[in-house]
Amino acid sequence: MQITKFAIPEIIFGNGSIKYLASCAQRLGAKRVLLVSDKGLEASGWVQKILNILKEANMECAYFNDLTANPRDCQVHQGAKMYLEHKADVIIGLGGGSPIDAAKGIATIVSNGGKISDYEGANRISRPLPPMIFIPTTAGSGSDVSQYAIITDKERQVKMAIISRSLVPNISIIDPDLLVTKSRKLILASAIDALAHAIESYVSRLASPFTESQALNAIKLIAENLNPAANNKDPEALRNLAIASTAAGMSFSNAGLGVGHALAHSLGGRYDVMHGMTLPILLPAVIRFNIPSCRNKMAVIARTINDAHIYSTEIEAEQVCDTLQQMFEELDIPMRLRDLLPDDSHMEDICHMAVQDACAVPNPRKADWRDLLGICIEAW
Amino acid sequence: MQITKFAIPEIIFGNGSIKYLASCAQRLGAKRVLLVSDKGLEASGWVQKILNILKEANMECAYFNDLTANPRDCQVHQGAKMYLEHKADVIIGLGGGSPIDAAKGIATIVSNGGKISDYEGANRISRPLPPMIFIPTTAGSGSDVSQYAIITDKERQVKMAIISRSLVPNISIIDPDLLVTKSRKLILASAIDALAHAIESYVSRLASPFTESQALNAIKLIAENLNPAANNKDPEALRNLAIASTAAGMSFSNAGLGVGHALAHSLGGRYDVMHGMTLPILLPAVIRFNIPSCRNKMAVIARTINDAHIYSTEIEAEQVCDTLQQMFEELDIPMRLRDLLPDDSHMEDICHMAVQDACAVPNPRKADWRDLLGICIEAW
Repeated sequence: MQITKFAIPEIIFGNGSIKYLASCAQRLGAKRVLLVSDKGLEASGWVQKILNILKEANMECAYFNDLTANPRDCQVHQGAKMYLEHKADVIIGLGGGSPIDAAKGIATIVSNGGKISDYEGANRISRPLPPMIFIPTTAGSGSDVSQYAIITDKERQVKMAIISRSLVPNISIIDPDLLVTKSRKLILASAIDALAHAIESYVSRLASPFTESQALNAIKLIAENLNPAANNKDPEALRNLAIASTAAGMSFSNAGLGVGHALAHSLGGRYDVMHGMTLPILLPAVIRFNIPSCRNKMAVIARTINDAHIYSTEIEAEQVCDTLQQMFEELDIPMRLRDLLPDDSHMEDICHMAVQDACAVPNPRKADWRDLLGICIEAW
Repeated sequence: MQITKFAIPEIIFGNGSIKYLASCAQRLGAKRVLLVSDKGLEASGWVQKILNILKEANMECAYFNDLTANPRDCQVHQGAKMYLEHKADVIIGLGGGSPIDAAKGIATIVSNGGKISDYEGANRISRPLPPMIFIPTTAGSGSDVSQYAIITDKERQVKMAIISRSLVPNISIIDPDLLVTKSRKLILASAIDALAHAIESYVSRLASPFTESQALNAIKLIAENLNPAANNKDPEALRNLAIASTAAGMSFSNAGLGVGHALAHSLGGRYDVMHGMTLPILLPAVIRFNIPSCRNKMAVIARTINDAHIYSTEIEAEQVCDTLQQMFEELDIPMRLRDLLPDDSHMEDICHMAVQDACAVPNPRKADWRDLLGICIEAW
């Protein structure tokens, strides 16, 4: 086994845990905070709640919300300007992956300068970032615990993956109460994103015993809780999805992902589709492509989802795809790329882009752009 | 579920990983290092190897080794003096629990002043500690990832438990190559200590989904690898014990322990016995005492050790004790307190001390000194 690293933030988890935000921020020396969030979270009342918590503790707050669902380079640069003008000392990200990734981008620019595209790829950030606290409001991106930020380069139509130990925040406050204001579609898309994090990182070439146990824990919890969480907003099921998303985040942050996410980023850069909705479509084809390189591990995933120990390794590895496809079909979500995209005219470009994505590196089976095109055709 | 915290250091794991020590130290700003270790590790050549790594990277090293197996308050104060005289900026602990706990004590004194007994109990350290890197050389204490330090107060004959988030180091470098120079007895005592960490923290009242998965992972790995690691020094088995010890450390550091460790500390303060050797003796009686408060969890532990899914919950919970006792008996280690201690004249005192130990707090079943005396009599 190779030498492996495992780094995660301090985690504060539980229903009602946002009440610890002010003391966490004070512990990091906060006097002037930049809060990054979005309009959806204003509408649901959480932004005001967070601002109240900070103001009651006598912190000066600036608030940045000029963000789209897939945050863009120009938005990050604008947020950095606000941080500097406000003379902020701590940055707080509240949201799904988008506001949190934007907050990471802002923190990178205010401490390291330049443009956010300067940091695309792995380990390009050299100077320490200001203290960061993230509060996830979806159970999916895992960005609140991870070394990853995904920012769209609008001009090149690329979702850039920025990967650095420096992007792990100081503290992640995970409060499952924040999930109840989410739509069925967002709960599903987020949970399937987390499931893809867990599956791709479990079979990654960089997986370690520390990431593998987190990945399997996440897969089990998502398989058990996805339905009651999405369809009934069952509080216990939502809480379990929050645990799963965090565990999957610990796993992919340290073990990396694979060509599923590389393709999803490439598609998302071109079409601005909902990230989580591309993954149930791509996953079965990606898994089928990867099985020859990680048959035993795919069998473990199948067993974890099925909780069935009666088949041979060979049958079980192949079973993953059917099991997943069945699970997704029951959820009544788009299952083909053609249901999501306007046309297939950019597919070759998208696959050329995807092989350049940093997420493709630890994929268990070597894949060139033609392999990825095969996956897309299978998923079309 | 209550609100729960999970904090661990950055982990670098793998055979040969000590080669990253210099770059890790430099990342933390090290120019003048205090290395804390002991004579056993000098004899096996690791101290010189570590000093060479640091000196080749142009770091000024002071070396402190004036330590007994259960480090004492006066030794910590001496080490702190050396740190200050050397004007050190980073502290490195190399060893089993003893040198690492001593290094934590030294780091506490040089930054917070006073005597180490001022910090006994939970959350008494207020000022930040100097950067710390730990390199465990036994697969057991978990001190290299934990918030705990155990220091003996010589005058009071007490092993003090000092518990603080500040005691989590910046980086833990876990290199299983360092385990091969250990004796069978030390491998066993260390692994059983880790097993006790995993079992006690799994049933702790502060356990969370993040600590529970680590605890079960540790229990499974120890049950599978204890024998080949201790008896054949099988490298793969030793590596798995190192993973287990780290996972158990992540669990107990965040979920706490129980009356088994409280009693072991109390016994160790009075008699200077080998910590790991008291635990196989105490564990069965402690588990028997705790079963009424955590029957389902004890059944999960029994299943994890046995990998048997065929019994009812009731039978399985009771089975843990037999399974463990059988496992320990096969290892040919002392199984009664009378084999370890010179006499039983201080038992009441020891139990009065143990109920005061911070480790007793999260025990799943409330226990007064009479309950602990019952456990000791059962284990005598």
